[in-house]
Amino acid sequence: MTRYQTPKSLAVLLRARMHPDLVAPGPPPSPVPAPDPATPSAASVRHWLQASVSAASPASAALDRFSNGYRSLDRGGRREILRSLVADYDVPRARVRDLMRQYMSVAAAGGEELPGVAGEEEGSGGSASALYRMERGLREALRPKYAVFLEAMNAQPGGLKLLAIIRADLLGLLGEDNSPALRALDGYLKEKLVTWLSPAALTLHQITWDDPASLLEKIVAYEAVHPIRNLIDLKRRLGVGRRCFGYFHPAIPGEPLIFIEVALLKDTATSIQEVLWDDPPTPECEARCALFYSISSTQPGLSGINLGKFLLKRVIDMLTRDMSSVQIFATLSPIPGFMQWLLSKLAYQIKLAEVELQDGNLSEGASSTFRESILLPEEERMIHDAVEQVDGKSEIELLQDILKSSQWVKSDKLSAALKSPLLRLCARYLTREKKRGKALDSVANFHLQNGAMIERINWMADQSEKGIQQSGGIMVNYVYRLENIEEYALSYLGTGLVHTSPSLFQYIEPMDT
Amino acid sequence: MTRYQTPKSLAVLLRARMHPDLVAPGPPPSPVPAPDPATPSAASVRHWLQASVSAASPASAALDRFSNGYRSLDRGGRREILRSLVADYDVPRARVRDLMRQYMSVAAAGGEELPGVAGEEEGSGGSASALYRMERGLREALRPKYAVFLEAMNAQPGGLKLLAIIRADLLGLLGEDNSPALRALDGYLKEKLVTWLSPAALTLHQITWDDPASLLEKIVAYEAVHPIRNLIDLKRRLGVGRRCFGYFHPAIPGEPLIFIEVALLKDTATSIQEVLWDDPPTPECEARCALFYSISSTQPGLSGINLGKFLLKRVIDMLTRDMSSVQIFATLSPIPGFMQWLLSKLAYQIKLAEVELQDGNLSEGASSTFRESILLPEEERMIHDAVEQVDGKSEIELLQDILKSSQWVKSDKLSAALKSPLLRLCARYLTREKKRGKALDSVANFHLQNGAMIERINWMADQSEKGIQQSGGIMVNYVYRLENIEEYALSYLGTGLVHTSPSLFQYIEPMDT
Repeated sequence: MTRYQTPKSLAVLLRARMHPDLVAPGPPPSPVPAPDPATPSAASVRHWLQASVSAASPASAALDRFSNGYRSLDRGGRREILRSLVADYDVPRARVRDLMRQYMSVAAAGGEELPGVAGEEEGSGGSASALYRMERGLREALRPKYAVFLEAMNAQPGGLKLLAIIRADLLGLLGEDNSPALRALDGYLKEKLVTWLSPAALTLHQITWDDPASLLEKIVAYEAVHPIRNLIDLKRRLGVGRRCFGYFHPAIPGEPLIFIEVALLKDTATSIQEVLWDDPPTPECEARCALFYSISSTQPGLSGINLGKFLLKRVIDMLTRDMSSVQIFATLSPIPGFMQWLLSKLAYQIKLAEVELQDGNLSEGASSTFRESILLPEEERMIHDAVEQVDGKSEIELLQDILKSSQWVKSDKLSAALKSPLLRLCARYLTREKKRGKALDSVANFHLQNGAMIERINWMADQSEKGIQQSGGIMVNYVYRLENIEEYALSYLGTGLVHTSPSLFQYIEPMDT
Repeated sequence: MTRYQTPKSLAVLLRARMHPDLVAPGPPPSPVPAPDPATPSAASVRHWLQASVSAASPASAALDRFSNGYRSLDRGGRREILRSLVADYDVPRARVRDLMRQYMSVAAAGGEELPGVAGEEEGSGGSASALYRMERGLREALRPKYAVFLEAMNAQPGGLKLLAIIRADLLGLLGEDNSPALRALDGYLKEKLVTWLSPAALTLHQITWDDPASLLEKIVAYEAVHPIRNLIDLKRRLGVGRRCFGYFHPAIPGEPLIFIEVALLKDTATSIQEVLWDDPPTPECEARCALFYSISSTQPGLSGINLGKFLLKRVIDMLTRDMSSVQIFATLSPIPGFMQWLLSKLAYQIKLAEVELQDGNLSEGASSTFRESILLPEEERMIHDAVEQVDGKSEIELLQDILKSSQWVKSDKLSAALKSPLLRLCARYLTREKKRGKALDSVANFHLQNGAMIERINWMADQSEKGIQQSGGIMVNYVYRLENIEEYALSYLGTGLVHTSPSLFQYIEPMDT
């Protein structure tokens, strides 16, 4: 980084905090506006929806008016529109049934031999033709009527952004009203967004200090993993030894849909402090490791659409081509669900123990099926010895007490006692705990499905308040080995197999695979 | 245009012809390569197709190999792949029938009341949920199995371009073998291309003399309406008083999918000579008319996908914003089908007359139903008088003889005799001749469906060989009136109504509308 004398006033500006609350900056304020007497009513926005859908070819003026109207509605008004969308523009079921009856009769009459382009008989072309036509008709009829509206909105300037806002609102509504019709709208919209946001339509752009302030401002606002503290922090993340890449869509200019921050290092970092604050950076010619230390998506409405997978792939391809010295592609990642999982596990075991105590020995067999020893005997002993006032509590009760506050980090004794059990339980959480066959931890699931393996877990790697609360300060390195990415992704997606390096075996037994 | 001394050698280069054959430059050579002993066989390309489709998540390596393999195949090999695509990866009909039977029974049992988000009874959520799930399953099952391959290919770098090549090959194959299965592939692929090439994914870029030579070279190669003769011609089309805009997709960088050339003029031009060769150009501050004089698409595989409509709309929006003096948005367009239509009409009438002569008066009633007077009596007289050797031929036979060669343009007498009938017949051709309710002329249909009206037809507006052969040298001005675009587009698409200015009424009677 070239350094020059900074005038004093600028220096103050550069160091000024960028967030009023550094601990939890959160996303930028929701775009739901304050009520304004001049804003349209939900009923008038519904009218423009009606006008957009009913025109033979949707009129762009009606779409524009719908779009402006929807944006100015409050939460209640927006929900009214969403409910009207699924109630009034659902699948035309009567038509579907008619078409199905016709299809079944044609298919029964002569369609059995199809497909048969090569072996098609003279004269059967007519019925084959009818079959294909009916299949196309059925595909169309099975689409909800709002499909036309969504397609037209996407083609409209600003439409894609509006659809992302609509989906974000819909996800909020689904949290309270998980009705099948609203779920179907979400499923359909998500399916379309996946197509529209195909990696073919996205442009990779390296974000630098030369980019417009309006873009850099968005990076500050949307950085979700490690908040950017001030302009010096931001400049450092875009300077020598660092890279920041964003994925942009032509319809949403000046704003990445997702961005990734990379540190070029001599070796895989084991703590986030060294990535964010160590000075000076490694000279780029000496870098052997590209460390992905933050991935943030900016549109809550694109939740569940894996843009990060393609972004990672393209960034790895680009770095491989441009920097031959870089041989290791690794992450330093948070484990956002670890503490929550551990605390609920502890609470459950404490509850079971209470129930056993109440029922006496009668039902011992039944409840003990669910009992498990969370701590090993030597871990129990260390925790017991580290606590000053035991008050007759069991070791898991003690552990629960300790973890509920973040103060234990300040005590060397407590930290030493917790290191071994937390690392072991964390390794178990990452490699064994599953939900529908996939890793329970969302970040783990993201990297594993993209073809990474778990390389190492690091003690006291993130000592920020958030890091301690979420994962007991532990962070994990996932590694992308170019030669294994496709194979690992397929085996994880197929069988849920989590690839780990042997360094994890000190905490857990390798699984039989 | 700033002018400076050009070194003599550069002047030669600038004036050098850019096409070996200026009359019919045609599109760049087809990408079908010459056979090469090292190229893969169609069988091995089929194998990679199989590998791409069958993997749980299509392996990008297999897609890449398919892509390279397909590009290197000759026409026969490519056709084998296309046939295999429709034969082996068709709609899974047995599964469709199973799902339909299930759906019909559920829909019959309790789905009749749906949709019913608002009025949904407690407890009926389960069956509604099942219905939505089945509809989604059916939508998916009704997709041909190659759908997954096409989606994955589109997400691949270079994939969109390959899919455009595949569609171009498919359109060629359909010309010889119009089988229902191949037609269904074309329909499906076109539907997907429309989605992927949504205007939301396209970027408008003004092409200037500052753009890379690799891009300008493509403009020269793909200009389909008025061939670019040399670098001076190209530089003029990108200089003062001119604009060139291209529509770009992130997946096909450095190459517009379609581009439009605009001249800024004091008034609507009536001949292409004044647009292409008049010097000096109108000062831009005096321009009142933006004249669209050429629209060319570069990808034959995107045939039938109306990108021009959105391109025109965005260019008009941009010019309206940036140049307040410009009030008229007009085209100067060829009429590519006029001569072909007129000659076939003449041939048919001549044939009918022959038949009548042979059969004598017996069948007069029957054949005269199809007889029509193409020429008015005074037009017949003028043509008769203008021809030196009549040889007992009828006037329509004389007209046929004259039009079959382009030499009549060189004779003032013949030109004068033809002016009135050709303008009248051209007006009729543009406003009355329809195919499936739409204008028979492809360029007319393009502008009318986009919301333009026919403003004026111009005699001797394109005296190039191609202009005389295609349209008797006549060109047409279509005008886009901002306040009427949506209304005109809707009425044309709905009822086939062609809006014309009163200037056309001198050639034809206004229609009752």
